[in-house]
Order: sequence, then structure tokens, then C-alpha cells
Amino acid sequence: MAKSSVKVAVIGFGTVGAGVVKILQAGAEDIYRRTGVQLDLAHVVDVDLQRDRGVELKAGLLHDDLDRVLADKDVAVAVELVGGTTKAAEIHKRLLASGKDVVTANKALLGERGKEIFETAREHGRCVAFEASCCGGMPIIGALHTGLAANRISALYGIVNGTCNFVLSGMSNEGKDYSTVLHEAQAAGFAEADPTLDVTGVDSAHKIAILSMLAFGKEIDFQAVQVQGINTIDLTDIRHGQELGYIIKLLAIAEQNEHGLSLRVEPALVNKESYLAQVQGPFNMVSVFGDAVGHTCYLGRGAGMMPTASAVVADLIETARGNAGRIFASTAGLGRPAEPAQMCPVDEIRSEYYLRLSSVDRPGVFAQVAKIMGEHKVNISGCLQQGSRSGQFVPVVMMTYRARQKDIYDALSELARLEVVNAQPVCLPVVMLPADE
Amino acid sequence: MAKSSVKVAVIGFGTVGAGVVKILQAGAEDIYRRTGVQLDLAHVVDVDLQRDRGVELKAGLLHDDLDRVLADKDVAVAVELVGGTTKAAEIHKRLLASGKDVVTANKALLGERGKEIFETAREHGRCVAFEASCCGGMPIIGALHTGLAANRISALYGIVNGTCNFVLSGMSNEGKDYSTVLHEAQAAGFAEADPTLDVTGVDSAHKIAILSMLAFGKEIDFQAVQVQGINTIDLTDIRHGQELGYIIKLLAIAEQNEHGLSLRVEPALVNKESYLAQVQGPFNMVSVFGDAVGHTCYLGRGAGMMPTASAVVADLIETARGNAGRIFASTAGLGRPAEPAQMCPVDEIRSEYYLRLSSVDRPGVFAQVAKIMGEHKVNISGCLQQGSRSGQFVPVVMMTYRARQKDIYDALSELARLEVVNAQPVCLPVVMLPADE
Repeated sequence: MAKSSVKVAVIGFGTVGAGVVKILQAGAEDIYRRTGVQLDLAHVVDVDLQRDRGVELKAGLLHDDLDRVLADKDVAVAVELVGGTTKAAEIHKRLLASGKDVVTANKALLGERGKEIFETAREHGRCVAFEASCCGGMPIIGALHTGLAANRISALYGIVNGTCNFVLSGMSNEGKDYSTVLHEAQAAGFAEADPTLDVTGVDSAHKIAILSMLAFGKEIDFQAVQVQGINTIDLTDIRHGQELGYIIKLLAIAEQNEHGLSLRVEPALVNKESYLAQVQGPFNMVSVFGDAVGHTCYLGRGAGMMPTASAVVADLIETARGNAGRIFASTAGLGRPAEPAQMCPVDEIRSEYYLRLSSVDRPGVFAQVAKIMGEHKVNISGCLQQGSRSGQFVPVVMMTYRARQKDIYDALSELARLEVVNAQPVCLPVVMLPADE
Repeated sequence: MAKSSVKVAVIGFGTVGAGVVKILQAGAEDIYRRTGVQLDLAHVVDVDLQRDRGVELKAGLLHDDLDRVLADKDVAVAVELVGGTTKAAEIHKRLLASGKDVVTANKALLGERGKEIFETAREHGRCVAFEASCCGGMPIIGALHTGLAANRISALYGIVNGTCNFVLSGMSNEGKDYSTVLHEAQAAGFAEADPTLDVTGVDSAHKIAILSMLAFGKEIDFQAVQVQGINTIDLTDIRHGQELGYIIKLLAIAEQNEHGLSLRVEPALVNKESYLAQVQGPFNMVSVFGDAVGHTCYLGRGAGMMPTASAVVADLIETARGNAGRIFASTAGLGRPAEPAQMCPVDEIRSEYYLRLSSVDRPGVFAQVAKIMGEHKVNISGCLQQGSRSGQFVPVVMMTYRARQKDIYDALSELARLEVVNAQPVCLPVVMLPADE
């Protein structure tokens, strides 16, 4: 038991695959010294056999034939780094059916089709380990599996997409607009050529679905995650937020309240003194609240070759030890069935809000706005208004006390119908983490 | 494999023991639902059978006879919460010899006599799990065991003692002196009646010894940790630090450089924009730098009934799954022998420094001071000096560029011998975390 040797196949030789190969080639001896686990790279599978990935492979390791991996009885664990949800699902199923454990960084697959993949693993008595699927090398999956396992988790707030955080940091720090910073992020390698999954919040939704399943021990329907991205964020709101003492971050939120579990991804204002507000560039942060432990918080690089490879190899070590298998087998939603989470109706979500509307600058307009807010039980806690002295449209920025999302939305649609209000009002939640004093 | 049921004994029914009992009594069902692990409390052992701990125990659970636990073959794992290094060592050895795994929060025992305890566990084929020994419920031990296992760790910087952080936070935020805040901390339950182990830095030294053994996979000699506490910190230096943009924190530091491993506990200036500077009150934070993952950082409550109990129960779950045993068996320094760490000679430690001396306020004195610094290859990067216009002693505060600790100390002893310098100069390191951009 003290020493284990395991043969590993890597399926998908892209950026992260190359990182995994680097660690397995350069770090294997040190890993063995510290952990007693010997990881031997036996196959690297990719359709592209020519491209230079900046790592040298021993002759014969790289090929394009998944069947050779499936037939190799010595391979105990395979790393799926193909990505996507269709071909990757098939690869997972074939690997599991051939008796191999699977390690993956594929958040889209597990976020959207996790139940199906985990059931397949269960049928075949194998495991799927996925530390690398959320937040790169920050060991948040491990923390939920083990370190926090004694807790009933009440809430989780995360900056879980490095691309979005890089873009929002750039907009906040440098006052540049969305598309300028997005292009810079692409040039710097912090955004994909097609950044849609990131900037629309879908990638963050995949991650909050995975994290919530573990945190709450419930089956999560990916479609139940409310998703809003950063692609509609206006520099104006970032500036107004800063004047009021807030930074805008894309948050992935899971909150358990008396109505059920609320899962959402949304750009939100966070107090500029908070830890979340200070997360810069491609870093990720996750704050978790447990009934015994209180607030714990995790910071690390959210993506990239080596941080993600770090998490993949961590899972390989735990799989080789047999621990990943035991955790998988005993965890609700993985090796054991879990009940579907009871979801909080969207209307029952409560938050403070930031509102901006464009209204004609003339006497009585603010009173009209305030009256409508009051009729919908939304109390204004503060406002920013600069007169134009010209009867033109001017921005009116309001902060509210805690209110029901439905009441805010109802008030907003009524406001949008006023003649004195121009264009669709902007509404962003103001997220205050639970007190832990 | 999917479900495990384990009988647990708790030895030591103090604050943390009561917290463990609370979780096992109120949370067992939820833990079983999520993790498949059923934890059954079978014994609670304490010499004091009368005191009210605010938890109700089933009749017969509480007794004062350790032998009954040793003889109970159904008990697979015992929690040692007695504390101290003498009696606790004996309890560990008897429990391990009787075939039980041990979970403990005892950092003093493991920091000072860990090797002996781990060898005993090894001999008996049992394990010792100790997530609760460092930083309460923050799962830093788990992160080092598993999530970061693929990395060569280069450095670790931690605020690992909540009492010291509470006292320093109070001094910084409220401008109160050391003894006033310490009394407040005692009244609020954040400091012991005898706070010696905390304020002298010894408790932090225990923790950095434990964390370093895991991070570097080496045997650590506790005596090799350089220890300085907060009990000599003067409010004057906290104020000067703030003027210069720094906050004083008690840091536990492990740095690997070309000369070896440097382990030290010292009050240090950290940039007020850094995450470490913002850790308030009883919270702990640990920043870890790995070659693949880069910077990861962990925050949580460092002590207290429920956070520590959260970590104890997490270890019980992993012990019940068999995972704690597999990790123990395969980890260098625990179930497998580790080589002693090669230590960096104290003289070779390098840092920036903050210096304060009290000198006569007359022409030529600063030139004399600067000359001595220069002769010892210490370059001054900035200074604060306010003239008294009276020829009296005035504080001279200097910041240095990176220098060898030996050179600074040599310069300081020469300075202390100058007639124009009054009292022992104050010297504190300025700790800058490695860049991770």
C-alpha cells in the first residue's frame, strides 16, 4: 500500500495535455519521493501527430488510436482533455467501459451531462475525478470532497472564470471599454479566439453546477442555473459602481435559503474592501460558508497550461492511491444517487440592487421613479444624480435595500414604460457575503 | 465500499471535543447522505465528568477510562484532544498500539514530536490524521496532501495564529497598545488565560514545522525554526509601518532557496494592498507557491470550537473511508521515512528590512548611520525622519533593499554601539510574496 505504480494515458494533446506531460516527465521522481505514487506515461493520443507542443515525447508514445488505449490492460487511468460535450462523452464511456478510471478537466461535459457520465462510471465500478474542471489548480473540488465534508454548506460565491475577471479587471483598473479589453485578453492568451462560452457566463454556470452538486450533495439540473454574462456590461456602470465603493465582478453564486437552492451567474457589485473585489486578472476565488467552519476562501489561477495540469496530476495521484475511487463511490451524486436539489423559485431570490436609468432631467421625475419603486416594496438606500440643467436625459443611479428579484423586475418594467425614462434600465445585484464575525 | 460505518471515541471533552460531539450528534445523518460515511460516537473520555459543556450526551457515553476505549475492538478511530506533548504522546502510542487510527488537533505534539508519533503509527500499520492541527477548519493539510501534490513547493507564507492576528489587527485598526488589546482578546475568548505559546510565536512554529514537512516532503527539526513573537511589538512601529504603506503581521514562513530551507516565525511588514495584510481578527491565511500551480491561497478561521471540530470530523470521514490511511502510508515523513531537510543557514536569509533607531537629532548623524549601513552592503531604499529641533533623541526609520540577514544584524550591532544612538534598534523584515503574474 505504501507505494503504487500506475500507467497513464493522456487523451487530447493540447495546451493542458502538454502541461500534464511536462509534469509527468520532469516531476515524476519528486512526486514519487513525496507521495509514494509512481505515474508512468504510457500513451498520448491526439488526431494531430505533427504540431510542436514544446515538449519532447519518447518515441512511440504519441499516436491517434484510442482503441490501443482501450485494449491496453496495463493502463489504469486515462486523462480526457478533448473538451466539448459530444465526442468527449463517448470517450468517457468507452474508457470507463474498458475498466479505466478517468481524470478530466471537462467542465462543460460534467456541468451539462455529469449525471450520465457518473452513472456510467458507477455501472462499471470506475471513477471520474475532476479537480481540474473548476478553477484550475485551486483545490476547491478536494476541499468540498474532504476538508469541508463535515459541514452543511449554506452558500458559495465564486469568481470562477479567469477570462471574465481579466476583462472586468482591465475595464475597472484602466477605464477601457469591453471590446478593447477583450481584444487585449485575446492577444495575451487570457481569452479564446471565440470567447462566447466565457463572456456569456456559460462556463461559470458549468462550474457552479459542478461545485453545487458537491457542496449540497444534490443532483443539479444545469438548466436551472440563471445565467448572465459580462458581454453587456457598460463602462458607465463600472464607474458609477466605483464612485459608490463597489467593483463589478462576474460571480457564480449558490445560495440555500428557505425556498430552496438558488444558482446563478451574474455580474454583481461587490464591496471594494472585500477579498472578492481584489481578485485581479486571470485569478479565481471561491468563498464557501459552512455551518461549522464558517467562511473559508480559496484563491488561485483559474486556468492555463500548468495550473490546470497541476490539478490533473493531483487527481492522477489520488486515483493511483485508490482514494479518488473511494470518494467517488461514496459521494452522493457520483457513485451513489442523489436527490434532485429543490430549487428556489427565481422570483424569491433576494438581494440589494444597483439600478441605472436614463431619465429626463426635470422636476418631479425622481419623485415619480421613487413612487413606483415604493409601490413595488423596493426601498432606495442611496442615489447618484447629476443635473444637466438642460432638460436632457441624464443617468439616475440608485442603490436599493434588500428586495425580492421579482419586485425589482416588476418595478423596472413599469419604469421602462414611463415617457420620461429612455432606454432599458440597467439592474445589477449588489452581493454582500454573509457576516462571519 | 460505497458505505462505511465507523465507531469513534473522543478523548478530551473540552471546547473542541464538545464541538466534535455536536457535529456527530446533529450532523451525522447529513454527513451520511452526502459522503456515505456513518460516524457513530461510542466513547467520550475526560477526567472531568461533571462540567457542563453545553451538549447533551447519551447516557453512558462519557467516562474517564481510556482503557475501555483501548479494549473496545469496535472503535476504529479515536480523536485525541487532550493537548500538550507528554500525556498526549502516551495516549497516541497506546491508541495506535491497540490498533486504532488517531485524529488529532495537537500541533504542539506533532510539531515537536511528530517523527516519533508517525513512526509509532507506521510500526502498528495505523495512521494519524491532523487537518485540525493547523489553521482550524481551513483545509490546508488536505491541499498539501492532495490538491497541490503535483507541485514542487518553493515557498509558504502564513498567518497561522488567530490570537496574534487578533491582537495585531486591534493594534493596527484601533491604535491601542499590545497589553490593552491582549486583555480584550482574552475577554473575547480569542486568547488563552496564559497566551505565552501564542504570543511568543511558538504555536506558529509548531504549525510551520507540520506544514513544511508536508509541503517539502522532508523531516523537519522543530529546533531549526527561527522564532520571534509579537510580545515585543511596539505601537510606534505599527504606526510607522502604516505611514509607509505596510501592515505588521506575524508570519510563519517557509522558503526554499539555493542554500536550503528557511523556516521562521516573525512579525513582518506586508504591503497593505496584499491579501495577507487584510486578514482580520481571528482569521488565518496561508499562501503557497508551487512550480506548476503558481500562487494559491487559503483563508479561514484559525481556531475555535466549531471550525476546529469541522476539521476533526473531516479527518474522521477520510479515516472511515480508508483514505487517510492510504495517504499516511504513502507520504514521506508519515508512513514512509523522509530525509532531513537541508536547512538554509540563518545568515543566508535575505529580505528587505524595516529599521528604527533612536538617534540624537544633530547634523551628520544620518550620514554616520548611512555609512555604517553601506559598509555592511545594506542599501537604504527610503527613510522617515522628523527633526525635533532640540538636539533630543528622535526616531529614524529606514527601509532597506533586499539584504542578507547577517549583514543587517552586523550593521545593527555596530549602530547600537554609536554614542548618538539610544537603545536597541528595532529590525523587522518586509515580506514581499513572490510575483505570480
